[in-house]
Amino acid sequence: MSYERTVLLLRCPDRPRVVATVAAAIADAGGNIVHADQHLDAAHDFFVQRVEFDLPAGAHERFGDDLRAVADRLSMTWDLWRPGEGPNRVAILVSQPGHCLVDLLGRVALGELHAEIACVISNHDSLRTLVEAHGHRFHHVEVGDGPDAAAAHEQAVGSLVEDSGAELVVLARYMRILPAEFVERHVTINVHHSFLPAFSGARPYHQAYSRGVKLIGATAHYATPELDAGPIICQQVTPVTHRDDVDDLRRIGSDLERLVLARAVHLHLERRVVTYANRTVVFD
Amino acid sequence: MSYERTVLLLRCPDRPRVVATVAAAIADAGGNIVHADQHLDAAHDFFVQRVEFDLPAGAHERFGDDLRAVADRLSMTWDLWRPGEGPNRVAILVSQPGHCLVDLLGRVALGELHAEIACVISNHDSLRTLVEAHGHRFHHVEVGDGPDAAAAHEQAVGSLVEDSGAELVVLARYMRILPAEFVERHVTINVHHSFLPAFSGARPYHQAYSRGVKLIGATAHYATPELDAGPIICQQVTPVTHRDDVDDLRRIGSDLERLVLARAVHLHLERRVVTYANRTVVFD
Amino acid sequence: MSYERTVLLLRCPDRPRVVATVAAAIADAGGNIVHADQHLDAAHDFFVQRVEFDLPAGAHERFGDDLRAVADRLSMTWDLWRPGEGPNRVAILVSQPGHCLVDLLGRVALGELHAEIACVISNHDSLRTLVEAHGHRFHHVEVGDGPDAAAAHEQAVGSLVEDSGAELVVLARYMRILPAEFVERHVTINVHHSFLPAFSGARPYHQAYSRGVKLIGATAHYATPELDAGPIICQQVTPVTHRDDVDDLRRIGSDLERLVLARAVHLHLERRVVTYANRTVVFD
Amino acid sequence: MSYERTVLLLRCPDRPRVVATVAAAIADAGGNIVHADQHLDAAHDFFVQRVEFDLPAGAHERFGDDLRAVADRLSMTWDLWRPGEGPNRVAILVSQPGHCLVDLLGRVALGELHAEIACVISNHDSLRTLVEAHGHRFHHVEVGDGPDAAAAHEQAVGSLVEDSGAELVVLARYMRILPAEFVERHVTINVHHSFLPAFSGARPYHQAYSRGVKLIGATAHYATPELDAGPIICQQVTPVTHRDDVDDLRRIGSDLERLVLARAVHLHLERRVVTYANRTVVFD
Repeated sequence: MSYERTVLLLRCPDRPRVVATVAAAIADAGGNIVHADQHLDAAHDFFVQRVEFDLPAGAHERFGDDLRAVADRLSMTWDLWRPGEGPNRVAILVSQPGHCLVDLLGRVALGELHAEIACVISNHDSLRTLVEAHGHRFHHVEVGDGPDAAAAHEQAVGSLVEDSGAELVVLARYMRILPAEFVERHVTINVHHSFLPAFSGARPYHQAYSRGVKLIGATAHYATPELDAGPIICQQVTPVTHRDDVDDLRRIGSDLERLVLARAVHLHLERRVVTYANRTVVFD
Repeated sequence: MSYERTVLLLRCPDRPRVVATVAAAIADAGGNIVHADQHLDAAHDFFVQRVEFDLPAGAHERFGDDLRAVADRLSMTWDLWRPGEGPNRVAILVSQPGHCLVDLLGRVALGELHAEIACVISNHDSLRTLVEAHGHRFHHVEVGDGPDAAAAHEQAVGSLVEDSGAELVVLARYMRILPAEFVERHVTINVHHSFLPAFSGARPYHQAYSRGVKLIGATAHYATPELDAGPIICQQVTPVTHRDDVDDLRRIGSDLERLVLARAVHLHLERRVVTYANRTVVFD
Repeated sequence: MSYERTVLLLRCPDRPRVVATVAAAIADAGGNIVHADQHLDAAHDFFVQRVEFDLPAGAHERFGDDLRAVADRLSMTWDLWRPGEGPNRVAILVSQPGHCLVDLLGRVALGELHAEIACVISNHDSLRTLVEAHGHRFHHVEVGDGPDAAAAHEQAVGSLVEDSGAELVVLARYMRILPAEFVERHVTINVHHSFLPAFSGARPYHQAYSRGVKLIGATAHYATPELDAGPIICQQVTPVTHRDDVDDLRRIGSDLERLVLARAVHLHLERRVVTYANRTVVFD
Repeated sequence: MSYERTVLLLRCPDRPRVVATVAAAIADAGGNIVHADQHLDAAHDFFVQRVEFDLPAGAHERFGDDLRAVADRLSMTWDLWRPGEGPNRVAILVSQPGHCLVDLLGRVALGELHAEIACVISNHDSLRTLVEAHGHRFHHVEVGDGPDAAAAHEQAVGSLVEDSGAELVVLARYMRILPAEFVERHVTINVHHSFLPAFSGARPYHQAYSRGVKLIGATAHYATPELDAGPIICQQVTPVTHRDDVDDLRRIGSDLERLVLARAVHLHLERRVVTYANRTVVFD
């Protein structure tokens, strides 16, 4: 018999027998659990589980039906995903520093990220050549002058993302603030160049230098209407010394930014991140 | 109703319905799962699960009986443990460097480690005052001269450990090699001052210095008859530079040794470590 | 000829020939430079150098005189210190969590820290036995009731520190705020249980949990009148996950607190830290 | 007056007055020292210093002459380098895993690495498109059959490197062993996918998995005739768990490989690495 790798990501209030019921449903369908991880937050009455299992080919439909019955009984919401399915479409927004963009493009080219680049959008034209050399569509959306320029720019960016059919938006060092409507409409991952909540807002490396910290960091998080305050997916830091000036911090930090952003996108695409109460559960 | 926190650690071949069956047994006994983690190694046909749950007071016995029936059916071995139970008795063996010993004594004194010091045994007398000031028994077992000295020493140490009723032996920088019979008879955790398998054996900091590595480490592992080759529980490293000579490595490394050893002992006492195929599963 | 290890720590405005002049003075005195490190902050017109050298026995006085002449010419301030000199007297202030205190006492007992414990002062009596078992003086200074209780307490603590002859005050998880006069009068190192500037103030582990960060940290810094805002000496972080609740953060973080505080005290006692512009230069 | 940033890297036996003499020479030429770092290894009678300073435009030649006189007196060898000078030519050798190559190409494209890609050489043709899209020359050198195939391949690769005028060769996951003549003739940096000296040789991730280590690493080092045994420039590690199989180790480790290789190349190009006694001094 041939099997298909399947991932079930489920959420529900904390009820007895959830684990037993789901495990039984998988066994009944002839499936074999390969990995399972779960998290219970009793204070929030929130239970979440990620189960990875092999299901006999052809059993997918019926298992979905079985699950629907169970889900109703347990007030459960769930995603069922097969890793072999087509890649997700991703739109990347970027300003001038290109290191996160280049890193993502390289990982997509090598197949490290199971994603398809829907388009790259920038408020500068400087990265066009790089993007087009990788065979992707590049949109330069200039910010005009006048009182309505910002709104017009946001409008244009929003339309391009909409038209691209992107399922995920990645802000790869995009230095403009997006309107609340945008981040509410599109699942959006941002990288901020500090270990949040320290140094949120503008010029974090200048802030870090001026505070005299001995480590700098980077944070990848889901964007929410409140700036730099969304659920954190991934953070990393590295030591620095008095010898490092702002330029050094920027150079050293850029490697952290690449890594946390690539890692957060990877985790998201693999259905390993669940958010609740402005925090994330990361099943890695 | 009052509840008792209970931990179930089970091992069995990879069979269908293990998770479902165990979850059902807990639910049947009126228990609520708080945490659960599991690991399947298909290549070794080995499944292991750690479930932490609250069981109604008084249900412990009956749940044990139920489990026995399940266990037979699934070829499962298991431990059932209540974290509130009395501390484990631990014997510590140490040579001259006292930093790991002092660290462990401090953690026991503060209640960070749920352990009772059965005794401290050393081939030197230099740490007696420190140990006795903490109110623990200290045995100095000298190594004599002559062809039988080593065997006599091992014999004496073995008897003291035996008499102490220790359930766990911790080698806190004990610089002598114990006979195979000892480590087969007593569960023994050792700390080695390198990131194994690099620099096993004698004088790892000298080896590290001479190889010019840019990071040094420490490893806590279960001792087995083969030197420095047992299942690894915990490892940590820290960067070093060309400026660090052997004395610096020793000083910097001593902090890693403290941490990995204390952490490994903590994980073991909390029933978070399972070994198979010369490796560990660590449920942290 | 016998030599004495000597450390020169000097500070001056950025002038030409400082390095050449100092190196020549050491060579003239028959000294051999073993290590040298320096830092120039052009923006602050601030130069600092730490030179470790071997000086012929008996040449100490004359070298000091030579240096005085040079120093005047270069507007230089300097410390000349011989590592073999007697240990510094250190007063430790602590509240209820004893892990940092126990760690420091262990390091002093083993000779890892070249310090002498002048006294331990606490607003609780719970750590008395531990401190006295190590042979140190313990003062319990209760905080009374009424409007003047805090001031009276600060007054009493201040007198005890004064009388102890301490050259350095260490706040090893001391949960009360000291008056500005205190930290201006006594060089004081504090440990804060977060990666500052994130989560300054009260209950940092609760703050960290509620923000959903993926790493927690600890910071050792010189205390200044502004709370948690003084020059940072040492910071460290460690990853955490959604599985870690506030108690876990506290337990995991306590190891970071121990390490950064011990390390900061060590660096300070070895004359490796220089402060300027609310930052530190750490010559490690 | 305009200034030119200049770097002096000098090596000599441990002689008195080296620092004073060099500092005086720089001051005499009207230069201002910006950074200076040094290292003395008394056991090897080896002194090395890196001085970064601003020299009046036009003074370069005369300063070189002055230095020559000093160098003879002190048995000193030295490099004098201006960071503004043209980029170094770098040849990259790679086999099938493309992540290190892609990372380096991205950094060169963004100007993060002050290098010019002389050519990319591979024993596979799979990365041609990527390399040519970046505008670089790609050579596929197949390994033929028969007893002389390896030698012929090495010969062909050697000629291509020679013809490319490369000053540095980078092995970006090149899975073939180069002959001793090659690494003796060309300065060559290799990345090995383990924390050396652990797991040298073939299939380090398989070795790591089978030993059950709790951290994996990557090492960038200068290649020498002895495999994986040359002077280490840069190492990094990251934690892994029992949940990570060999594929996970490979995926997680690939990020370490990228970083340590890029960092080692950067340090080398900035004249921050000096080797002696099979070790490196890294002035970062």
